[in-house]
Amino acid sequence: MNRSNRGPTDQSIVSGSDFLQLNIRDAPVGRRSDWLAEQLRLAIADRRLPIGSKLPATRVLAVELQVSRGVVTEAYQRLIEDGHAEGHGRNGTIVVAAPAAPPEAPQARPVASPPGALFATAPGADIFDSMRATPTRIDLSPGTPDLAAFPRSAWLRAERSALASLTASDLGYGDPRGTPALRHAIANWLARNRAIRVDPNDILIVAGTAQTLSLLGQVLRDHGISAVAVEDPGSLGARQHLHNQRLDTPPVPVDSQGVRVDFLRDVAARAVLLTPAHQFPTGVVLSGARRRELMSWAFESDGLIIEDDYDAEHRYDRPPVPALRSVLPDHVCYAGSVSKLLAPALRIGWVLVPPRYRDALVAAKRFADLGNAALPQLVLAQLMESGEMERQLRLLRTRHRRRRDTMVDAIRTHIPDAEVHGAAAGLHLMISFDAEFADTDLAAAALAQGVKVQPLSWHSQHSPRPGLVLGYAASAPTAISEGVAILGDVLRHLL
Amino acid sequence: MNRSNRGPTDQSIVSGSDFLQLNIRDAPVGRRSDWLAEQLRLAIADRRLPIGSKLPATRVLAVELQVSRGVVTEAYQRLIEDGHAEGHGRNGTIVVAAPAAPPEAPQARPVASPPGALFATAPGADIFDSMRATPTRIDLSPGTPDLAAFPRSAWLRAERSALASLTASDLGYGDPRGTPALRHAIANWLARNRAIRVDPNDILIVAGTAQTLSLLGQVLRDHGISAVAVEDPGSLGARQHLHNQRLDTPPVPVDSQGVRVDFLRDVAARAVLLTPAHQFPTGVVLSGARRRELMSWAFESDGLIIEDDYDAEHRYDRPPVPALRSVLPDHVCYAGSVSKLLAPALRIGWVLVPPRYRDALVAAKRFADLGNAALPQLVLAQLMESGEMERQLRLLRTRHRRRRDTMVDAIRTHIPDAEVHGAAAGLHLMISFDAEFADTDLAAAALAQGVKVQPLSWHSQHSPRPGLVLGYAASAPTAISEGVAILGDVLRHLL
Repeated sequence: MNRSNRGPTDQSIVSGSDFLQLNIRDAPVGRRSDWLAEQLRLAIADRRLPIGSKLPATRVLAVELQVSRGVVTEAYQRLIEDGHAEGHGRNGTIVVAAPAAPPEAPQARPVASPPGALFATAPGADIFDSMRATPTRIDLSPGTPDLAAFPRSAWLRAERSALASLTASDLGYGDPRGTPALRHAIANWLARNRAIRVDPNDILIVAGTAQTLSLLGQVLRDHGISAVAVEDPGSLGARQHLHNQRLDTPPVPVDSQGVRVDFLRDVAARAVLLTPAHQFPTGVVLSGARRRELMSWAFESDGLIIEDDYDAEHRYDRPPVPALRSVLPDHVCYAGSVSKLLAPALRIGWVLVPPRYRDALVAAKRFADLGNAALPQLVLAQLMESGEMERQLRLLRTRHRRRRDTMVDAIRTHIPDAEVHGAAAGLHLMISFDAEFADTDLAAAALAQGVKVQPLSWHSQHSPRPGLVLGYAASAPTAISEGVAILGDVLRHLL
Repeated sequence: MNRSNRGPTDQSIVSGSDFLQLNIRDAPVGRRSDWLAEQLRLAIADRRLPIGSKLPATRVLAVELQVSRGVVTEAYQRLIEDGHAEGHGRNGTIVVAAPAAPPEAPQARPVASPPGALFATAPGADIFDSMRATPTRIDLSPGTPDLAAFPRSAWLRAERSALASLTASDLGYGDPRGTPALRHAIANWLARNRAIRVDPNDILIVAGTAQTLSLLGQVLRDHGISAVAVEDPGSLGARQHLHNQRLDTPPVPVDSQGVRVDFLRDVAARAVLLTPAHQFPTGVVLSGARRRELMSWAFESDGLIIEDDYDAEHRYDRPPVPALRSVLPDHVCYAGSVSKLLAPALRIGWVLVPPRYRDALVAAKRFADLGNAALPQLVLAQLMESGEMERQLRLLRTRHRRRRDTMVDAIRTHIPDAEVHGAAAGLHLMISFDAEFADTDLAAAALAQGVKVQPLSWHSQHSPRPGLVLGYAASAPTAISEGVAILGDVLRHLL
C-alpha cells in the first residue's frame, strides 16, 4: 500500500494533465506537437471537447504537461489550420468544427406528453413532472406564488453579506439540523406570524415539505405506523409521497367546517395529515369546534397530527388562524417552507417535531443528505431577521389579491354555474359543478386550448362533484381572464 | 365548503394582523391602545417577542389592524415608558426588557462529548456530528479541502449573473434531475477532466454523495440487492449510509494494487462500492491489472460498481487516472460532488447511473426532495463553464501540495516509525504502525491535547495494524507541524 515513501519532492514523477488525461510520456520523442494535436482532434471527434468549448491557455497546458509553451502553441496552430479551432486573441482558442465521425444516436427522452395523454389515465408518480414539462400558453396550476415578485436584489445583498461574514468552518460539513442562524430566525418568524413558541434546537431545516413527508414517513414506519389518514379531497402530491414510503392513506371527508373528526375516529389511524389554516384544495378553515374535537382525539388516542401549513401567510378577507402546533406542541408535527413565500426552487422548509420523534427525524435527515446547503440558509436567515420577508409578504398579498379578484370576477362572467370555494386566502381557489361529467375531460379539453388546470378528481379518493383547482397567484390578470374565458368556452362544448 | 361567495370586495370582513395574530375585534371599544400594549407585553413576557426584536412600523401595524396610527403610537409609548421597549428614531422601536416571568427551563441538548467518550466505544451513527461538535485547536480530520480558498468573489459574481438572467419559471418546481444548464456543464467537466462521455440527460444532480448512497440504496433494495461489498479498510461514513438503507457491507481486502477482485468473487455480492482513483483511506490507485479483473467480474456476474470519485481531481506526483465509468458505462454508477472541489456545505453532487436503474433513481430523487435547489446549480454551472473551476483546482493543488509536504516532513521528524501511505494525491494521508496498541487510545490522547484525528480502525471491518487517517488540506502548515509534533509526543507516552 505504500506508494508515497518515495517522497513528495521526487521531481522525476511526471504529473500529467487532468485535461483529457494527457500524459506527455505517451508522446513520441521529437513529435510532441503532432501527438498533442492528434489527441485534441480525437477529443473533438468524440465530443469530449464539444464545439464552442475553449482550449486551455497555452501557458497553463504547457506547465501541466511539462513541455515548452511552443509545443502547445504549435499544436493549437495545427488545429486552427485544419479548421478544427479558431484563435480569438486574448479570448483564447475555441473549438469550431468536429472531424467527420458517426453521429450520436439521439437519446429518446420523453419530455412532454400529448395533452390528451395526461388526463387519459389515473395520474402516475411522475404526473406533476409531466404537467410541468407540457408547454402551455396559460398555466393555472395551483401551488406557486407570484415568482416575478421574487426579491432578487434583496437576495443578492443578503448573499453578499453572508459570503463576507461566513467562516471557513461554515463551508464544511455542518449540523444536519441546519444552521443555528436560520433555526433562530425561523423560531422568531413563527412566534411573530404563527403564534408558535419553539426552541430553535427543536427546528429541523429540510429541503421543503416534500422532504418532510419523506423523512417523517420513514420515521413513522420505523415506529410501527403503517397508515396516515388524509383529508378527502386532499393533496394528490402529499398522498403520493406517503405512498412512496409504503404508508396507506385512508381518506377522511372534509365539510364546510374542515376535516370530519368523527370519521377520523372510525378510521382508527394513529396519524393524520391536515391543512387546517386553508384546506387543500377546498380552502376551508378548520372551525373552532373541530379544533377542539381534534385536540380530544389527539389526547385520547395519542395521535399525531401532521400540520401542513403550506400557505397560511396568504390571507385576504379573513382574520389569521393560529397554527394547531401553537396549542398542541406534543401531538403536532408542524411543516412549513418558503415555497409559497419566496420560491419553490429554493427547496428550503422546516419541521417542528414532537419530542418522541425528534432524534429519529434528525437521524433520517443526516442519512438523507447530511443537512441542507449552508449558504442559502444564511441568506434566508438575514431576510427573515431584517424584516424583508414581511415586506415581501405584504407585496405578494397586494398582487395576489388583485389576481384573486380578477379570477373570481372572470368565473362569475364566464362560468356562472360554477361554485367558488376557498377564495378568502391562499394561492388558489376551487370551483365545483352541480352536474355530471368527468372533470379530467374538461382539463384535457382546456389543455388542448392552451390552458393548464388540475381536475378536482385528482385530489379526491372518493368520487366528488366534478371541479377544478385553479391557481391565480402566478399568472398576470390578463392571462387569468383569458384562461377562465377559455375554460367557460370549453365547458359549454363539453356539456 | 363555500366560504367565498361573499365576494372579495366585501370590506366588512376584518383581516387582522399576522403579527402576533392580533385581531382588533378582541379590543374593548375606546381602549384599543391599552389592549394593544397589553398584548405586546404578553408577547414579550412569553418570548414570542424576544429582547432585541424590532416592533413593526406604526404605520404598517395600523393598516393591518385597521386602526389609526395614533392607537399604535400610543401603545408603543406605553411600552417605552414602562421600560419594555426603547425608541430608536428612524430605526424603530426595539424590545429591551421582559416583564418578570418564570424562566424557561434550558433545553438539555448534547452538543459535544468529553474527549475520551468519542473513542471509548464503537462509533455510532452520529459519530461524525459528535466529532464536528467537539472543539479543538488543531483539526486533522480528513475529507475537507482548503475552505479558506473558497472563491467567494467568483461565486457572488456568478450569483448576480444567475439572478439577473433566470426566468420566473426557473424559480418554480423544476426537473427533479436538476437544471439543464448544470447537467450540461457537468457533462463537459467530466469529459475534460475524467475522460467520461455522458449525455447530460443521463446525469442526476443530488445533494452530495451521501444522498447518492441513500437513493441508490433504496433502488438496489427494490431491485432485490441486499448487500454492497465495500473495500476494507474503507470509509466508515459510506458504510453507515449503506447500513441505514438496510444493506449489508461485506468487506473485501485492499492491497497495494487496490481492491482484491479475487476476494470480491468469493463474497458473491452483486454490487461493490469502490474508490479506484485514490482509495479511502489507504490512497492506493487501482492497478491496470485489477481494473481488467474488475471489468471481467462486472461482465461475468452482471455486477454493479459504485465508483465514488471523491477526490480524483487532487493529484501531486502521479499521472491522472481515468474513471472506471469511462470504460464501463453499463456497469458503473459514478458519483462525484463539489465537496472536495469547492465546499461540502454546498451539498451538490452528481450521479451517472446505468440505464437499468436510471428511472428508479430519478423517482427516488423526486420523492426525496423534488430535486436540488435551482439557484446554486445555475451558479455552479457558470463557474464550470467559465473555467473558474479549473482555476480553483490549480490554486488548491498548489496550496494542498505545500501542506502535504509539511505533513510528510513533520511525520519523518516527529513520528519516524510511522509508515506513510497514499500521499501522492487527495486531501489526506494514512499512517500505520508496526506495533501493538489501540489507535483509538492514540486518537483519544491526541484529542485531550487539542488535536483531532481519526483512528484507522474506525474505517476497518477486520483488525488492521494501528494507524491514523490525517487530513492536511484544511489546515495551515504551522498547525500541521504543531499537530504532528503533538501526535509524536502523545505516541511516545502511550507506548
